[in-house]
Amino acid sequence: MTKKDVKNALNEFGLDLVNQLKKKKNPSFNVPTRTLSNVFFDEKSKTLKLGKKESARTFFNIGQAKKFLQTVEVAAVTKNLIDIDKNSSLRDVYYQVKRTIPGTKIELVEEQTETDKAIEDLEVITGFSREQLHVSANKNGSVAGNVVIEDKGDVIDWGKLGSGGWSIPSIVEAIQFKKVKADYVLYMEKAAVWERLHEDRFWAKNNCIIMSSQGQTTRGIRRLLQRLADEHKLPIYVLTDYDPWGFYIYSVVKYGSIALAHASERLTIPSVRFLGITAEDIEKYDLKKHFIKLKDTDIARIKQVSQYDWFKDNQAWQNQFKKMKQFGAKAEIQALSSRGISFISEKYLPEKIKKKDFLD
Amino acid sequence: MTKKDVKNALNEFGLDLVNQLKKKKNPSFNVPTRTLSNVFFDEKSKTLKLGKKESARTFFNIGQAKKFLQTVEVAAVTKNLIDIDKNSSLRDVYYQVKRTIPGTKIELVEEQTETDKAIEDLEVITGFSREQLHVSANKNGSVAGNVVIEDKGDVIDWGKLGSGGWSIPSIVEAIQFKKVKADYVLYMEKAAVWERLHEDRFWAKNNCIIMSSQGQTTRGIRRLLQRLADEHKLPIYVLTDYDPWGFYIYSVVKYGSIALAHASERLTIPSVRFLGITAEDIEKYDLKKHFIKLKDTDIARIKQVSQYDWFKDNQAWQNQFKKMKQFGAKAEIQALSSRGISFISEKYLPEKIKKKDFLD
Repeated sequence: MTKKDVKNALNEFGLDLVNQLKKKKNPSFNVPTRTLSNVFFDEKSKTLKLGKKESARTFFNIGQAKKFLQTVEVAAVTKNLIDIDKNSSLRDVYYQVKRTIPGTKIELVEEQTETDKAIEDLEVITGFSREQLHVSANKNGSVAGNVVIEDKGDVIDWGKLGSGGWSIPSIVEAIQFKKVKADYVLYMEKAAVWERLHEDRFWAKNNCIIMSSQGQTTRGIRRLLQRLADEHKLPIYVLTDYDPWGFYIYSVVKYGSIALAHASERLTIPSVRFLGITAEDIEKYDLKKHFIKLKDTDIARIKQVSQYDWFKDNQAWQNQFKKMKQFGAKAEIQALSSRGISFISEKYLPEKIKKKDFLD
Repeated sequence: MTKKDVKNALNEFGLDLVNQLKKKKNPSFNVPTRTLSNVFFDEKSKTLKLGKKESARTFFNIGQAKKFLQTVEVAAVTKNLIDIDKNSSLRDVYYQVKRTIPGTKIELVEEQTETDKAIEDLEVITGFSREQLHVSANKNGSVAGNVVIEDKGDVIDWGKLGSGGWSIPSIVEAIQFKKVKADYVLYMEKAAVWERLHEDRFWAKNNCIIMSSQGQTTRGIRRLLQRLADEHKLPIYVLTDYDPWGFYIYSVVKYGSIALAHASERLTIPSVRFLGITAEDIEKYDLKKHFIKLKDTDIARIKQVSQYDWFKDNQAWQNQFKKMKQFGAKAEIQALSSRGISFISEKYLPEKIKKKDFLD
């Protein structure tokens, strides 16, 4: 799967339209429907996937002409990006496409969501990821561990980057792993927890990789985790707050999301395991005194997440949701600090990992 | 200014209270008032500063006892952090302090804002920064450039870190600069712009350092910028959107903020200059077609920011605010991408920097 393949796919898309024009046809292409009705949970691969529903996008059609043009225009922008070997952010793609259609007062795009959707369509049409189309979202997150990579000609040792660590780029496709000496990857939602573990040199003492975003998991992080899982067979453990939002972070990394169901293969990691915080941790480590009362939005979210296909028949997870409702409370991972500043790195994590106390 | 000095300051604070107790006095200490009424813009240093108003915090006083205890408790936590040579996040400090006062049903702290304020008080009482007291906030941001540092025993070349760059830690006090070969630092609010410049190797071609957060400027970034300005006499140029929020990002880096007026000396950089986007850029580079209409909140914010002491008599800045109101619109830095993906790194930035086209 090379850059040439991606370019070929884009060329093919363009040539097909040219051929239709030459035959005096009304140019048209098909795009799989990406609404909820066409997203299903595939029991076999254990990921969210797109169904077979497709809709045509036709040029001479009042309702489709603009979307047709947007997709073609975005295809041209991405082809140019590949030609000049540069990457562009989603926002930059929007500005590169944005213009008034000559001779009219019509804007080709009004909002970034339109070019974003066109890029997602192109992912499905070409079979290549947004990153392979040279389009990035925001970068976020840090990583440290016994790993040496090569990226853009630089050799980078993730274990020798001081207190900061390596800043994870938005696109990690071109990274080459030179040395990976780790038993597992610990991925956490909070940068402050990462700094705690890094200062305690948790990754060196426990021979692992620590990775963090701040809040949502970027696609760059998901791909980096996936590559470590696929190419180096590393187990991935997820560490979040004890709340439905934390559970959902795990859910997205493992099963994918509805919005990105078309990209599941390139982003989901079915082998991912949830490390904590669990209801049992709350009881075992006496964290109830640091409970935070559930708000209405939390309760609604618990109901929603617990009914997802991949959770609804999972007894272990249903038990988590049930207990959270019984407690009427959530808790933060930092509540562990009440047991001592390094309780998390010296006791909580080593104990749980040794006992293989995970949720799947 | 060593770790010992910080510890001595905390010891002194504690010993003074012990001495008062020994003399059977009602223990008490003074804290400068940190409300708006005691914050002023110091024309000489060109930074926001605290005035001389102080208030006593006394143990046997119903209204002050809890705050007294919180401050003493947080002092104990920070002293312990220095003793064990570890850093703690603000959230972790909260959990380390949080407990029910024995024999009562009273919680020592209810919300993190209480321990946050106690730490700010300790900054003023001891004269040392939160970072020197070993307390961190969230890390964020990346940096690249012709710089070699030493941190935690690792030698890190900011110019050899692939597409990611160095992830800036929350505390940068201990970093040692080994080699700084750069003419200036370019600090931008957007990670996507940083990735654009980094991919174009802007820092290598223009011999500078590029640094980015995502949104607000963390204290780690502000201190890192300040250290480069103070210790290496590097000019700092700020690059933001053309909107009141971007202008305020510049304002905080240069003059400080009301909430952190007590820490101005350790955070503000009076030499900082604003590079863009300016009203003149909008006209010169034909960006009006990418205007975004001002919302009511934008208009209110323009009014507020334009009336700050350090802006209100500054004709160049008043002109910016006036034009923005006349335009009735703001614009994003990424609007430059409509001129070409690398227009920013090949034309806009080199041209402006060469002409010294800055706002002060």
